[in-house]
Amino acid sequence: MIKNELREECGVFGILSPATAIVAHSTYYGLFALQHRGQESCGIVVNDDGIFHTYKDKGIVNDVFTPQVIENLGEGTMALGHVRYGTKETKSRSNAQPMVINHVKGRMALAHNGNITNYTELREQLELEGAIFHTDSDTEVIAYIITRERLRSASIEEAVEKTMNYIKGAFSLVVMSPTKLIAARDPNGFRPLCFGKTEDGSYVIASESCALDSVSACLERDVKPGEIIVFDKNGIRSNVEHCGKCKTSLCVFEYVYFARPDSVIDGGCVHQARLRAGSFLALEHPIQADIVIGVPDSGIDAAIGYSRQSGIPYGLGFIKNRYIARTFISPGQKSREDKVRIKLNPIASTVKGKRVVLIDDSIVRGTTCGRIVKLLREAGATEVHMRVTAPPFLNPCYYGTDISSKESLIACKHSVEEIAEIIGVDSLGYLSVDSVKKIACCNDGVDFCCACFNGEYPTEIPTATYKSRFQQKLSEKQ
Amino acid sequence: MIKNELREECGVFGILSPATAIVAHSTYYGLFALQHRGQESCGIVVNDDGIFHTYKDKGIVNDVFTPQVIENLGEGTMALGHVRYGTKETKSRSNAQPMVINHVKGRMALAHNGNITNYTELREQLELEGAIFHTDSDTEVIAYIITRERLRSASIEEAVEKTMNYIKGAFSLVVMSPTKLIAARDPNGFRPLCFGKTEDGSYVIASESCALDSVSACLERDVKPGEIIVFDKNGIRSNVEHCGKCKTSLCVFEYVYFARPDSVIDGGCVHQARLRAGSFLALEHPIQADIVIGVPDSGIDAAIGYSRQSGIPYGLGFIKNRYIARTFISPGQKSREDKVRIKLNPIASTVKGKRVVLIDDSIVRGTTCGRIVKLLREAGATEVHMRVTAPPFLNPCYYGTDISSKESLIACKHSVEEIAEIIGVDSLGYLSVDSVKKIACCNDGVDFCCACFNGEYPTEIPTATYKSRFQQKLSEKQ
Amino acid sequence: MIKNELREECGVFGILSPATAIVAHSTYYGLFALQHRGQESCGIVVNDDGIFHTYKDKGIVNDVFTPQVIENLGEGTMALGHVRYGTKETKSRSNAQPMVINHVKGRMALAHNGNITNYTELREQLELEGAIFHTDSDTEVIAYIITRERLRSASIEEAVEKTMNYIKGAFSLVVMSPTKLIAARDPNGFRPLCFGKTEDGSYVIASESCALDSVSACLERDVKPGEIIVFDKNGIRSNVEHCGKCKTSLCVFEYVYFARPDSVIDGGCVHQARLRAGSFLALEHPIQADIVIGVPDSGIDAAIGYSRQSGIPYGLGFIKNRYIARTFISPGQKSREDKVRIKLNPIASTVKGKRVVLIDDSIVRGTTCGRIVKLLREAGATEVHMRVTAPPFLNPCYYGTDISSKESLIACKHSVEEIAEIIGVDSLGYLSVDSVKKIACCNDGVDFCCACFNGEYPTEIPTATYKSRFQQKLSEKQ
Amino acid sequence: MIKNELREECGVFGILSPATAIVAHSTYYGLFALQHRGQESCGIVVNDDGIFHTYKDKGIVNDVFTPQVIENLGEGTMALGHVRYGTKETKSRSNAQPMVINHVKGRMALAHNGNITNYTELREQLELEGAIFHTDSDTEVIAYIITRERLRSASIEEAVEKTMNYIKGAFSLVVMSPTKLIAARDPNGFRPLCFGKTEDGSYVIASESCALDSVSACLERDVKPGEIIVFDKNGIRSNVEHCGKCKTSLCVFEYVYFARPDSVIDGGCVHQARLRAGSFLALEHPIQADIVIGVPDSGIDAAIGYSRQSGIPYGLGFIKNRYIARTFISPGQKSREDKVRIKLNPIASTVKGKRVVLIDDSIVRGTTCGRIVKLLREAGATEVHMRVTAPPFLNPCYYGTDISSKESLIACKHSVEEIAEIIGVDSLGYLSVDSVKKIACCNDGVDFCCACFNGEYPTEIPTATYKSRFQQKLSEKQ
Repeated sequence: MIKNELREECGVFGILSPATAIVAHSTYYGLFALQHRGQESCGIVVNDDGIFHTYKDKGIVNDVFTPQVIENLGEGTMALGHVRYGTKETKSRSNAQPMVINHVKGRMALAHNGNITNYTELREQLELEGAIFHTDSDTEVIAYIITRERLRSASIEEAVEKTMNYIKGAFSLVVMSPTKLIAARDPNGFRPLCFGKTEDGSYVIASESCALDSVSACLERDVKPGEIIVFDKNGIRSNVEHCGKCKTSLCVFEYVYFARPDSVIDGGCVHQARLRAGSFLALEHPIQADIVIGVPDSGIDAAIGYSRQSGIPYGLGFIKNRYIARTFISPGQKSREDKVRIKLNPIASTVKGKRVVLIDDSIVRGTTCGRIVKLLREAGATEVHMRVTAPPFLNPCYYGTDISSKESLIACKHSVEEIAEIIGVDSLGYLSVDSVKKIACCNDGVDFCCACFNGEYPTEIPTATYKSRFQQKLSEKQ
Repeated sequence: MIKNELREECGVFGILSPATAIVAHSTYYGLFALQHRGQESCGIVVNDDGIFHTYKDKGIVNDVFTPQVIENLGEGTMALGHVRYGTKETKSRSNAQPMVINHVKGRMALAHNGNITNYTELREQLELEGAIFHTDSDTEVIAYIITRERLRSASIEEAVEKTMNYIKGAFSLVVMSPTKLIAARDPNGFRPLCFGKTEDGSYVIASESCALDSVSACLERDVKPGEIIVFDKNGIRSNVEHCGKCKTSLCVFEYVYFARPDSVIDGGCVHQARLRAGSFLALEHPIQADIVIGVPDSGIDAAIGYSRQSGIPYGLGFIKNRYIARTFISPGQKSREDKVRIKLNPIASTVKGKRVVLIDDSIVRGTTCGRIVKLLREAGATEVHMRVTAPPFLNPCYYGTDISSKESLIACKHSVEEIAEIIGVDSLGYLSVDSVKKIACCNDGVDFCCACFNGEYPTEIPTATYKSRFQQKLSEKQ
Repeated sequence: MIKNELREECGVFGILSPATAIVAHSTYYGLFALQHRGQESCGIVVNDDGIFHTYKDKGIVNDVFTPQVIENLGEGTMALGHVRYGTKETKSRSNAQPMVINHVKGRMALAHNGNITNYTELREQLELEGAIFHTDSDTEVIAYIITRERLRSASIEEAVEKTMNYIKGAFSLVVMSPTKLIAARDPNGFRPLCFGKTEDGSYVIASESCALDSVSACLERDVKPGEIIVFDKNGIRSNVEHCGKCKTSLCVFEYVYFARPDSVIDGGCVHQARLRAGSFLALEHPIQADIVIGVPDSGIDAAIGYSRQSGIPYGLGFIKNRYIARTFISPGQKSREDKVRIKLNPIASTVKGKRVVLIDDSIVRGTTCGRIVKLLREAGATEVHMRVTAPPFLNPCYYGTDISSKESLIACKHSVEEIAEIIGVDSLGYLSVDSVKKIACCNDGVDFCCACFNGEYPTEIPTATYKSRFQQKLSEKQ
Repeated sequence: MIKNELREECGVFGILSPATAIVAHSTYYGLFALQHRGQESCGIVVNDDGIFHTYKDKGIVNDVFTPQVIENLGEGTMALGHVRYGTKETKSRSNAQPMVINHVKGRMALAHNGNITNYTELREQLELEGAIFHTDSDTEVIAYIITRERLRSASIEEAVEKTMNYIKGAFSLVVMSPTKLIAARDPNGFRPLCFGKTEDGSYVIASESCALDSVSACLERDVKPGEIIVFDKNGIRSNVEHCGKCKTSLCVFEYVYFARPDSVIDGGCVHQARLRAGSFLALEHPIQADIVIGVPDSGIDAAIGYSRQSGIPYGLGFIKNRYIARTFISPGQKSREDKVRIKLNPIASTVKGKRVVLIDDSIVRGTTCGRIVKLLREAGATEVHMRVTAPPFLNPCYYGTDISSKESLIACKHSVEEIAEIIGVDSLGYLSVDSVKKIACCNDGVDFCCACFNGEYPTEIPTATYKSRFQQKLSEKQ
């Protein structure tokens, strides 16, 4: 799938480095490695002995954090960073994270990946108690609850622990107080969160292990579902009170699409999972063909897996233009087909006169997919057999993924055969739900959320959104 | 006085324009006219039928609001704008105003000029109730209290009215709800606030009347000290419940330095007040001399007044470079004398061989002043007699002016004779407190705050600051 | 006159500083002081032992030269800078100066203020010899001729001297070779050029003495009309071969409008000249009135002079907004009257109920002027008597001033009485040509060009322009 | 090879589109597709009926050409674009192309890929005739010669044809006159140049066919070595007078590294050539191993070829971070190993416990290569066998490639065995010169330049550079 169609909401990165002072640089590299998890905005907070220096803006890490900005952030022993992907409506700078707030016992910075399913209820209750909200982000609700609990707690970690009794849904959260970094992951473990250590004794927390690699930290282990870990000058302390309260349900789409192939999540290597997804696909939907190609970047790994299982040679089918960093000028009078071609050009010599197996990770609306198939045919492919490394999307996601409403999901309105016809392929095969659960070789006890495929939500799901409630208030007001 | 030495904290501008949609443009012009009240950051919120579009950033209006930004703000029937001057520590983008918050009954934007003297106490109390703070601005405290009162009020204006029972000090506040603009001024009337009307029926609220002029609105009148005025599609409604609760105490320094000469505040024309300040100075501190000159820009008017009263010819003594809009590159090895010269160059032909009366509006630390005197002597002035259009600063201001601590005020540590010697003048005369109270020909009943000169504070003054309290918390934490 | 109506084409600044290395900083300050001479583009070339580091861009000095850019320019013993005002058509970055070229004997940078009247002929001839042109600037023609002469000259200064046999018109030129700075001024001395020396032994060349002041250099003297001065490590050498070839004809409008009041040009103080212009006006066009005001900034000095001569009190009539540094957003639906008001707001208390004498330096098209008069009447002025510190513009200027074609000059189409009616004043008086020649108290032998007023051009004038010739070529091509 | 180590100097794009007006957009897309050929600066010139609108700046296409800039370029029937990779010394904006010049018969824009080997001699001769040079680019020399020939030619194409008698070396040149586009390629055909046609009848010229694809133009054919093609409203005309004058010598490194895999050059598909390079490598340097991986991006294709030939499975060995668009903040205290890891992270699961064949396209200095090998070993590779898809670099390139001096080429100082030890591999094999000549299946008669490998230069080579000559002039001057 070409990025932009499906969006995950965040990547987080925290570092505690008592020995070095260059935490802003390290966080910069870490966010850079997590850039694929969010390209709308980014931010870094440096903690210099209780004084927080913050910089956040819209844009990618490489644009927002110029050398001057990094220098202005100064030195410190801790830092917290965040990359964010938001929906159009909330693209304002004010929603950029980490969020820095002052509360009764000091300062606190929060960075969060996930989605609180009882956000509307919690916010309503807080508003009724007089709370004001600067943002539309669930992070602000979490900040409020931690603050309220902090009033009657002996420590910030105790407040975070109590907060977990209130917030439901998916959260991989890092909180920075003047003296501590606290990592917390929801009991379902929807979103990844791990930590590592560097040779000089720094602790590093990140959404994915590839960010640890980027600062030469060794992966220690994942934060367990439900676990809270405190990092401070005395080392690390784990609180597992919330662990095991429910079955884990790691988002399987992290393996299929979101995560970087070189990351290892809950024991499972993302690249291996994608190779296996390709192999399962070959087993479930075999076809006679001459070449297997993948849609860059996330279809490549699975294409290799399909090739290995099927014996059909693997080939490079497309060149993806690597220089699109920011808003791309819309082609105006040019047809939208051309727009795909600007990003993705087929290599005719690979497909000409051949029966092609085309691997992608998903079909959302089907329009981009149809254009890609058309490009292949124009390049001379005699047959195009599409294989998708995940089951069809049939249900919305409430755990931090921007899967559009049912109306825009092609699989909700059409059968597989119809979709094949719409996108113009000779055959189409999706990976089965059973198989997609088997692609990752994870740690013992890790189970997956496949709700977007099978509708089996591991938690209660929200009934109203804050936005609908706000619209209602507005109309009452008139 | 060369700008930068003394800072006032804000200018506000609001517009309700049911007939036109170009409220973003109008607010841009209004803020542009108020730019002298704050050059650190600026912001505009456009209210499009309950949906708020906001843009805020560090920098002056002309840099922050590019045509593209104004266009992105879109159309609406109301808008609220703000220019801000902050102290160094709070220069972050997050303190830029207007502040937009969501609360239990909807959205609200606030823009504020002044300083709440019981800010620390109010904030502490709110924090103890679990409030979180994104900023260091007293505007956020006001927002909280309005929100809390809104819970038990029938309308936003009722909540604003009740809020005035809690907040002490100086505030000229404009609140924008989805359907209303509400202007409120503290009962002392420390900071100016007025409103006007345009030919097409728009209402305009502004810190100074010069901003009304810039959008061709006619000044209707000032918001009275203690008054709350609601502007909506039904017209205007005034609430005077808080009026007359105390003697008015308009900041006299608005006339001396802060306001633009073409503004009329509480019935008094600023330019006339400065002319009169010059005349009083000539009466109190006459001298035999050949030419009267003023330090641009705020000393010019008084120099004309001194000249008229004394009969000594008025002359142009300095050229001020008009092209310094932003951070100026520091001269490195160059002496700081040169830095003054880059901004202000004497016209030798005006002063050469002459006894010069030099008019400025204040002496803060005395360093800049000393350099200016030195430039005049190098240009050939045989005598320099300095006259200051205000009494010496002896006390800190708690009402929204950044007058440094006593340590940095030259008049707190030295007699007038000593100051004269330090800055190198042949004679030095300050305007008396009695006279400075008489410079403005205001509406009946308007009295002045001269606390920075005579220490007579019209309200209780704060005992601790939030910052000191925060430092304490941090040290407890270690 | 409000800036923007009339444009001069440049300011130049050069420095030779064997003792210090911060020539980029000094040039930055110097250009900053010359900013009024050109706000379209600017540039600095630093000469580091024969290696030239250049930065040029569109925009004002304070925007183009960020601290980073200045730092990147590095250190050196010489630098050359330029500010430029161009007409709309030539606003491209490629016309920014200084121009740096490589030629047979090395490198050369040129900065130029003025206009070569035989530019078209020289360019045509060069083109016929195979020359290529990157710009539309006459500086490139000068560069070619110096280069051609350099081939048969012993030194760069000899080449510059020979070049003066070819180029006609107005030029105040500074050439920087790897080891020398060379200043040259046309024999008529149309445009100013002077030099000074600092305490540390640096030589500084500038269009106006105010730029010398900004780097604490003492004005030594003006470059004489026709003189060539070489500055190098051995000191200065003057070549006066071209001096005295013709009567001097310094542009009188430098005193009336272009130059900064604190500058001294050819012995005449600009501020004094403007004071005298006001006095002459009072003598030539006396009137019964209550107040004299000037249009900021260039009408202010003359208003003081008129007041002194007439005895009518001087007052501040307008506040000019100081924060317009760059392109100002056009008011869209707002009338253009408002646009003037955004920049210039009358002080009602100064003019209300009074007969006003309004001093400005020129009337070009009359539109801006008419709006200003209207603002005064709305502010309550009972009579407005306009006095202009120069005679009417009747002829185009070929010496570096952008005085529009006759069609757009109001005085070419209307009598003084008609103009008074058009702009809405009760009386109108222009300074006579005889008097304008007397305003500056210059060095002996300095005479003035008043061609724009009386049509007496001191040199031959061009018959065709390069642009018209180019259009012709294009049409031939079709 | 990670980009940045070796640089080619340019990509050109021209369009003649009588039917549409959106030539700026098309050129933008075309340059975007050619971005890999130069990321230092870029530029577009739009030809609107003889009027040229130009924009050039440092930076990549996506940063330089904002929507506003594209809009300002306006409409036209022709456009010329360029992307450039320069060496450090010449990174200034002034060297950006296309170059626009005015000459005796009108205007002309030039964009050029290659390197003129007799540049120094030609420039010296021109300088001796009085020419001035604004740039250090050989394009300016070409512009001069065309201009000189134009004086005695009936048409611009005749002048271009005559120019080819003077300039030696590598040039793929596009010249735009007010009414024509002219493409010319040197008789050796060192650098690629092709053209195509769109459905609406536009002609498109580009360095590589991938740029034709991006604007939906069909590749017609390559410009032949020595051919000149004129495109105007009457269609196309070919001049083959200079064809066949010498053996063709297309740069073989275009196939190995420079060109995009989806391009077809002189009949040879780049991707196929790289696959074949991998196959030849497997034949020449077989090894027992468990996995074949390629260094992204240019080693990927050959790794697939090696895998196919050898039967060893192909795997994804590295993830390359896609978000590095611009200058990357240097890691300061961090080791340079980390810097490689930020761009390129190994996938441990692919290589752990395996014998790895690592394919890259070249080894320049060996440092980056050594770090990559180290990363693989840290990720658990038991053996690393490096295979390089080209012979060792032993000689400088004079035809437009920035291959450093012999001193920095590791292969000039060390044997293959020594290099293997330095970079830390178990075995090392380079493709032979014989084989590299066979990788591309080109049109009949196309032969290759392998001078950087075998020192057999197809033309005379330069003896002095302009830079050395300039340094000499400078020292003479002292």
